[in-house]
Amino acid sequence: MTKEIRVGIVGTKFMGRSHSNAFIDVPHFFEVPFTPVLQAACGRNAADLAAFARQFGWKSQETSWEKLVEREDIDLVDISTSNLTHCAIAVAAAKHGKHILCEKPLAMNSTEARQMLDAVQEAGVRHMVAFNYRRVPAIVQAKKLIEEGKIGKIYHINAVYLQDWIVDPNFPMAWRFDAKEAGSGAHGDLNAHIIDLARYLVGEFEAVSGDMTTFVKERPTPDGKGKVQVTVDDATSFLARFTNGAVGTFTATRFATGRKNFLRLEVFGSKGAFNFNLERLNELEYFSLNDPVVEQGFRQVLVTESKHPYVNAWWPPGHIIGWEHTFIHEVRDLLIAIDQKAEVYPNFYDGLRCQQVLDAVALSAAEKRWVTIPAEG
Amino acid sequence: MTKEIRVGIVGTKFMGRSHSNAFIDVPHFFEVPFTPVLQAACGRNAADLAAFARQFGWKSQETSWEKLVEREDIDLVDISTSNLTHCAIAVAAAKHGKHILCEKPLAMNSTEARQMLDAVQEAGVRHMVAFNYRRVPAIVQAKKLIEEGKIGKIYHINAVYLQDWIVDPNFPMAWRFDAKEAGSGAHGDLNAHIIDLARYLVGEFEAVSGDMTTFVKERPTPDGKGKVQVTVDDATSFLARFTNGAVGTFTATRFATGRKNFLRLEVFGSKGAFNFNLERLNELEYFSLNDPVVEQGFRQVLVTESKHPYVNAWWPPGHIIGWEHTFIHEVRDLLIAIDQKAEVYPNFYDGLRCQQVLDAVALSAAEKRWVTIPAEG
Amino acid sequence: MTKEIRVGIVGTKFMGRSHSNAFIDVPHFFEVPFTPVLQAACGRNAADLAAFARQFGWKSQETSWEKLVEREDIDLVDISTSNLTHCAIAVAAAKHGKHILCEKPLAMNSTEARQMLDAVQEAGVRHMVAFNYRRVPAIVQAKKLIEEGKIGKIYHINAVYLQDWIVDPNFPMAWRFDAKEAGSGAHGDLNAHIIDLARYLVGEFEAVSGDMTTFVKERPTPDGKGKVQVTVDDATSFLARFTNGAVGTFTATRFATGRKNFLRLEVFGSKGAFNFNLERLNELEYFSLNDPVVEQGFRQVLVTESKHPYVNAWWPPGHIIGWEHTFIHEVRDLLIAIDQKAEVYPNFYDGLRCQQVLDAVALSAAEKRWVTIPAEG
Amino acid sequence: MTKEIRVGIVGTKFMGRSHSNAFIDVPHFFEVPFTPVLQAACGRNAADLAAFARQFGWKSQETSWEKLVEREDIDLVDISTSNLTHCAIAVAAAKHGKHILCEKPLAMNSTEARQMLDAVQEAGVRHMVAFNYRRVPAIVQAKKLIEEGKIGKIYHINAVYLQDWIVDPNFPMAWRFDAKEAGSGAHGDLNAHIIDLARYLVGEFEAVSGDMTTFVKERPTPDGKGKVQVTVDDATSFLARFTNGAVGTFTATRFATGRKNFLRLEVFGSKGAFNFNLERLNELEYFSLNDPVVEQGFRQVLVTESKHPYVNAWWPPGHIIGWEHTFIHEVRDLLIAIDQKAEVYPNFYDGLRCQQVLDAVALSAAEKRWVTIPAEG
Repeated sequence: MTKEIRVGIVGTKFMGRSHSNAFIDVPHFFEVPFTPVLQAACGRNAADLAAFARQFGWKSQETSWEKLVEREDIDLVDISTSNLTHCAIAVAAAKHGKHILCEKPLAMNSTEARQMLDAVQEAGVRHMVAFNYRRVPAIVQAKKLIEEGKIGKIYHINAVYLQDWIVDPNFPMAWRFDAKEAGSGAHGDLNAHIIDLARYLVGEFEAVSGDMTTFVKERPTPDGKGKVQVTVDDATSFLARFTNGAVGTFTATRFATGRKNFLRLEVFGSKGAFNFNLERLNELEYFSLNDPVVEQGFRQVLVTESKHPYVNAWWPPGHIIGWEHTFIHEVRDLLIAIDQKAEVYPNFYDGLRCQQVLDAVALSAAEKRWVTIPAEG
Repeated sequence: MTKEIRVGIVGTKFMGRSHSNAFIDVPHFFEVPFTPVLQAACGRNAADLAAFARQFGWKSQETSWEKLVEREDIDLVDISTSNLTHCAIAVAAAKHGKHILCEKPLAMNSTEARQMLDAVQEAGVRHMVAFNYRRVPAIVQAKKLIEEGKIGKIYHINAVYLQDWIVDPNFPMAWRFDAKEAGSGAHGDLNAHIIDLARYLVGEFEAVSGDMTTFVKERPTPDGKGKVQVTVDDATSFLARFTNGAVGTFTATRFATGRKNFLRLEVFGSKGAFNFNLERLNELEYFSLNDPVVEQGFRQVLVTESKHPYVNAWWPPGHIIGWEHTFIHEVRDLLIAIDQKAEVYPNFYDGLRCQQVLDAVALSAAEKRWVTIPAEG
Repeated sequence: MTKEIRVGIVGTKFMGRSHSNAFIDVPHFFEVPFTPVLQAACGRNAADLAAFARQFGWKSQETSWEKLVEREDIDLVDISTSNLTHCAIAVAAAKHGKHILCEKPLAMNSTEARQMLDAVQEAGVRHMVAFNYRRVPAIVQAKKLIEEGKIGKIYHINAVYLQDWIVDPNFPMAWRFDAKEAGSGAHGDLNAHIIDLARYLVGEFEAVSGDMTTFVKERPTPDGKGKVQVTVDDATSFLARFTNGAVGTFTATRFATGRKNFLRLEVFGSKGAFNFNLERLNELEYFSLNDPVVEQGFRQVLVTESKHPYVNAWWPPGHIIGWEHTFIHEVRDLLIAIDQKAEVYPNFYDGLRCQQVLDAVALSAAEKRWVTIPAEG
Repeated sequence: MTKEIRVGIVGTKFMGRSHSNAFIDVPHFFEVPFTPVLQAACGRNAADLAAFARQFGWKSQETSWEKLVEREDIDLVDISTSNLTHCAIAVAAAKHGKHILCEKPLAMNSTEARQMLDAVQEAGVRHMVAFNYRRVPAIVQAKKLIEEGKIGKIYHINAVYLQDWIVDPNFPMAWRFDAKEAGSGAHGDLNAHIIDLARYLVGEFEAVSGDMTTFVKERPTPDGKGKVQVTVDDATSFLARFTNGAVGTFTATRFATGRKNFLRLEVFGSKGAFNFNLERLNELEYFSLNDPVVEQGFRQVLVTESKHPYVNAWWPPGHIIGWEHTFIHEVRDLLIAIDQKAEVYPNFYDGLRCQQVLDAVALSAAEKRWVTIPAEG
């Protein structure tokens, strides 16, 4: 743990905070090949940036990401901005030979994602997309069940990501509701996560049929004096077929009154099944047809045993971890990959593949037809 | 309770049994205008019929439904057969002036359903489709919440009906897997229920985009010597838009390993939300935005209070009822409607509307496009 | 099923209703050696009695239980009265050679219970106490797990029976709150059930330390004009030691706001554990140390498979049964026992043993010390 | 946030790790008057100590706690050792004018606890016992419900703390199973927590009746060659009466197969009730009699709203926190108290009161009688 890796972060909000915490905490719990040094933080608003840097101990500040990615004292660029700027920052960072951790969704569209992938591959740097839910111990445990054949051939995945923070029609307009800035609404924000998890757990998508809805079509301007049109989706659902024969339903919404961060996966296979809910992320419900019929039932596995993925670094059984721990696991795996010059997943290729599904759903919704996903990214 | 109503039932299996029980038990718990008399039972297999009649006390037996519907000592015909024969029996029964309780789905297709509706309307008899889940106290309570404005404008309904009884690919062929006999598989059997509940709770469907799948394409013949092609769906999912602006996802499957009779509804509106699960049918989860923010949460309402629908007839709070009680409630409401010469719901019009949605989903799946539901039945 | 058994019931209220239903329904679902004939019903209030008899089809009526137990056309006496009268009726019925099904708790105290046991043993009739929760399929399944060694040596049983129907201090006085009539309050009513289940599942009690509380010491008279002293417990908790080394905690209360009929058992052994909740009586939570560590968890077993106890008589998997079904199972087993001249459990000996524990807890609470249970009844 | 507070910690194991993390993370999320400086760590084993200090960045090391508490560059002593040494360290630290955060239970017995309280009061330093569950947001929210009168007069508290880590009889002997080192087993370790929570939420204990059990009386020596007697309890249950009329049952055990860190509170009052489970610590179940009867039910409140206690410092709604966050909250409150020279709770007086209940239960179990708790500490 003598080596250091110098991190430059772009973005000082929600994701900037959770990533900062991860860089700080990771060496306290995991044996990592590098100690992260919080070298430089970058944000557009100088006052916000200063507060952020002071709070987490970032050693220097930049208000231009262009300068940050050029700095020679930066090894790893963390892109925690809104997705509008991901592509430009990533391409520039790659050109300067920086390893990159980029927030999800990778880009505004597949074209950008492809460009980003090309850039990092050309530069030969490590690249990772921050689909942090792949680092929930229960999700990794579910993946193990699949790999061990305990779920069998997968028939169904039903996935929802339900939030309710804009149910109030007077919730004011923001950049997140403007297609030019945000690309899409619930779709890119939430479906991106469950699409990535479906690819991780089930396999590649073959075709989709989607439906995008904007329930509240106008919202008050932030000053409350007028109304502006909402140009992104409030909710997007789609049907999916996978190349391995599985089928799925997906719903992302910001209008599921009472649900805050309710990402639920239900996967059913020929030999077993599992359920997962992000609001109870320390638990995995697992059903096995191998149990005697009269004793079969969904097991409520508390994924806090030292033998469970990542858990050994934490606390004794039953002492649960929180949402932010997924980022610590993510950074741990990235640091190891950088050290070993090995691929780490989900990488920008995964980000591109996810983007292709997102784009296909949007196209499908626009044209009211099924859309096929390209066989390769 | 001095009047009698003489019932003739066609069908001696699962539904014949649950309906028989309902006719017997209803006067023991509810004040009903008629005491049902189990006048005649009809089945094709004489031995099975005799056993069935003896077990439930049916006074006479017929092996021809044509004879049964003609009998002058029958007031009400209960059609508990497979849906292949619903239309013929119902049309004949109507012609003979019998009131009709018909199992779901009403028919093999919309054309038949329309014919049945015409017949009962012409005959001026009472007609009801046995969508018994409209008589679960928790469902009626949910309907009340909607009517009282406590859910507000409905945005989402996510409905699944999950079973797993044919996950085993060696489960042998049966008439239920033959399109000619059964019409469809999970779709007509299971989606019919959740489509009817969606119409009851949310409103009329506008358009659908569906996907039908047969995971196990061949099954062993009952004698185990050969294989036969399965011609119905194992699973059907669809996206839906409602005329009032709500959107929905629906999944029916017989391949959800670990789920036995898992009908789950999740309804989200502008003021509240509710969840329901048939395997815990005495419970309703209800969320209200009217509660103080720090006290908001889904309330696990145990729908066993005397003020809850139908419950006063039963037991004290917390003493749960079972699945079969829904039929008792259904028969109770039908008897009152017959006495009062009033409409009872769901009637054959509802059955037709459900059929139109079922047909539209099937067409949509076949042609890979959205299909619009007729504005009226 | 050609033989008949003629039943005479004493008591027309809650228990009278649920027992009537059981006698009517049992032959519709189970192969029983006798068809119950509802021969005579007995109650003190002639109007109530007439309504009750009409509703369930009792063929004749008696307002004196002394006459009922003498009638030659009665084979089985069902005692569904309050426990004040159990002893007198049972002793008289036994003298007249009637088989007896008696509601719980068996008696007002151990002395009475002993007298009743002597009477039925002398008469050589069948005797059963209506601890109906022994006939919940999930409870019988739990018993099987124990018998098969899957729970191992039992260390803990934590049992609660929580209700809340008299939390309101203005809930008026009734005979149930008068020690002379009722014997005790929550203790005899609710602890009786969980004591019996503990004996069934864990074994014999060795010693107890109890605490009885009356939170609301006076209640309004029914006419609302005065106040009367409550002379029974509102809540009773006790610690227990079993002869096999297990320990337990027990709580019965009518002051658990929000809990309606919440009987929860938690049993932990050296190899496994199970949990049960009467409000979800179709479910059993089962944990096994035999599962691989990373897959261990409480299995939510839906006890509705045809291989589960009693279930084959009912509906397909996932179609739940209700609280009243436990009485149907009870009557089924009693009829078989009568036919086979075999013992049926829980019998009056079990009723006596339960009474001894109830009495010991009451004595312990009064004298503030541990009280030992007699080694035999 | 310019001021610093220099921390010296004694203990490098489980608690040392979670406290270290809290000191590091607290300024990243909360506005605190001091930035903790990890000045010195103390442990008996030099190699373990070095690894611990390196991992969390402790600036210096001591192998003698006597030296640590003397150091002038230490402001706050954190006692994270086993309870055998709490008293000596705390008394010495107080004499040197250090503020003290001490792990629970405060001491080996009430005498020690009294001595510790005297020492800190005489020294005029801040003192806090690390009953960290008082800093679970859901617990603080429950306390608010009580203070706002929403629970009403409390009738019942049923509390359990269930673990299973020594169910295996071959789990080897350790200091924790030796009364001389550990004082007691499950009792001091687990009951201490739920006694403190009961005092926080319900009020002062009046009297107890307890039962202590050792299921596995001998365990293998660590080298596996012999057997040693276990001299502490495996499980301890007790009945309690509170001075305000509430009653309670308490169980702590290490033999609850399948339960890992299952601390469950059930509190029932005249106007409402709540339930809490540490394994789902982001949730609070709350029942209110103020809701309309047909809408009453336990609300599953996800305690992750910015208006919930402590939550505003963390993430958006639905993004759960983990077990260790309770220590961060604890340290935050301690730092503020030190700055404001204000009392912080639970302090050593609370630690003493908890100890008195623990002692009373042990005495009660030994003498098989009820034991009264002193009216004041």
